[in-house]
Amino acid sequence: MAAGKKQKAGVIGLGSMGLGVARTLLKKGFEVHAYDVRPEVSKAFAKEGGIAAKSPADVGRNVPVVIVLVVNADQTNEVLFGKDGAASTLAKGSVVIASSTVAPEFAIDLGRRLDAKGLMLIDAPVSGGAARAAKGELSIMGSGSKAAYKKAGAVLKAIAVKVYELGPDAGTGSKVKMINQLLAGVHIAAAAEAMALAIRAGADPKVVYEVISNSAGSSWMFQNRVPHILDGDYTPLSAVNIFVKDLGIVLDSAKKMTFPLPLTAAAHQLFLGAAGAGLGYEDDISVVKMYQAMSGIKLPAKKKK
Amino acid sequence: MAAGKKQKAGVIGLGSMGLGVARTLLKKGFEVHAYDVRPEVSKAFAKEGGIAAKSPADVGRNVPVVIVLVVNADQTNEVLFGKDGAASTLAKGSVVIASSTVAPEFAIDLGRRLDAKGLMLIDAPVSGGAARAAKGELSIMGSGSKAAYKKAGAVLKAIAVKVYELGPDAGTGSKVKMINQLLAGVHIAAAAEAMALAIRAGADPKVVYEVISNSAGSSWMFQNRVPHILDGDYTPLSAVNIFVKDLGIVLDSAKKMTFPLPLTAAAHQLFLGAAGAGLGYEDDISVVKMYQAMSGIKLPAKKKK
Repeated sequence: MAAGKKQKAGVIGLGSMGLGVARTLLKKGFEVHAYDVRPEVSKAFAKEGGIAAKSPADVGRNVPVVIVLVVNADQTNEVLFGKDGAASTLAKGSVVIASSTVAPEFAIDLGRRLDAKGLMLIDAPVSGGAARAAKGELSIMGSGSKAAYKKAGAVLKAIAVKVYELGPDAGTGSKVKMINQLLAGVHIAAAAEAMALAIRAGADPKVVYEVISNSAGSSWMFQNRVPHILDGDYTPLSAVNIFVKDLGIVLDSAKKMTFPLPLTAAAHQLFLGAAGAGLGYEDDISVVKMYQAMSGIKLPAKKKK
Repeated sequence: MAAGKKQKAGVIGLGSMGLGVARTLLKKGFEVHAYDVRPEVSKAFAKEGGIAAKSPADVGRNVPVVIVLVVNADQTNEVLFGKDGAASTLAKGSVVIASSTVAPEFAIDLGRRLDAKGLMLIDAPVSGGAARAAKGELSIMGSGSKAAYKKAGAVLKAIAVKVYELGPDAGTGSKVKMINQLLAGVHIAAAAEAMALAIRAGADPKVVYEVISNSAGSSWMFQNRVPHILDGDYTPLSAVNIFVKDLGIVLDSAKKMTFPLPLTAAAHQLFLGAAGAGLGYEDDISVVKMYQAMSGIKLPAKKKK
């Protein structure tokens, strides 16, 4: 395909998720305009074949579809509507794929503000983590108009193996993602609580893992995270701080609805404790170390390679 | 096989689990001596081809292997060591398969007391529920000596599709079951919390169920129990009272070890609340009605057939 005929896409935010998405788009033949608040990161991406943008506005004036993968709602707002924001330069009819985990009420408001500028939103939280972002194997819990999905179709297809279309309304994607994060966070904390008790009770944690993985007590997170405990390896795949943030979003949203979440609140306190103990950047299952601190259990040591 | 050559097995406790196990053993050609505290239940089982025992001792004097499927530790103790208990009549070398959910420390003590009488224990909590008990498809989280497993092998094979041998020590089976129940109970309450919030937030509960079932927020219990909420059908497969009891056992055991369980405690309070609201005999996912009571959400109505 001639260079001038390449499909164009923008990526704003080159963290572990955004960089994986940007590289995937490059690999699949897109002309990728990318921006990160750290100029050295954009420049490094340019050496891989991307185009380093000087600002979000610089991304916006060059592409019809931009995916925003920053940390939270504040940053999403800043890169779209702040100084040199992308919303000021995107052509009418362009699509913003907003993929950070945000409160549903923020997504709804964002949809209104983009609509006022003639832009379309896909409220598109992702799941799958950095490893699957790099492989183009994300799962997207999205909502947005049929026109937006059509215009962004090639980009979505390039970066995800599963693209949900949950309806036309902004907020729906973020609601489903919020419920998913509630469960993911509670299940991680529950896996930690259960394995810690197993160790305290003198059961063999490997045996417990094997049996429970095949029993009614299993969860996706139990199966995925408990091996980190067994291996004593807390290298972050997803960090404690992610759940401090995401369960915080869930609790704030629910509080605005006067809705109590006793389990989520208990799990959030444990993640907060882990962050307070200096484990914020460790793997999220490090929350098991709170139980170690409260009981003196001996967790499996890291295996030598 | 001539009647006199039939293998013999005893079943004590003909509740929903025990009756299923007893019928399975009959179906597979065993001579089944069965006892229940309600004489009419034993008599009804005799009409199906079983032999109604007048007391646990009456079971014990006729069989080399007896499975005990009563409600709790107290009843297990009573049918084995109480008046006319089976331990007084079982021949030396016989096997007791104790399958009620009990505290690990009870199972350990039970093993010692049976050993003192020359009897062997398999500490053998089951999972799978009444439906799978009736089909001979239980999963057994067992521990006990190789000799005990050998002697009880035909019985175990008849009633279960999966028989774990978790080691020689009494208590190991009950520890693993305790951890499983901790997770099962927390996951049911988390599923209720998540679906209730989804409804409050205005998301379509069916869509949420479909997406989360395929996402990192899923659990065995989420997939299995949430359809009851969607169908508005709280017919008990497993009841709220089971988790009032089982999480109570987990919390009591952990307290004796000075081990805190914040998530389990929160979940237990919700099941207690559901029982206090008169829902003890409803399906365990009725715990979602606690969230209804705290928020006024409208749960899906029961479908007309």
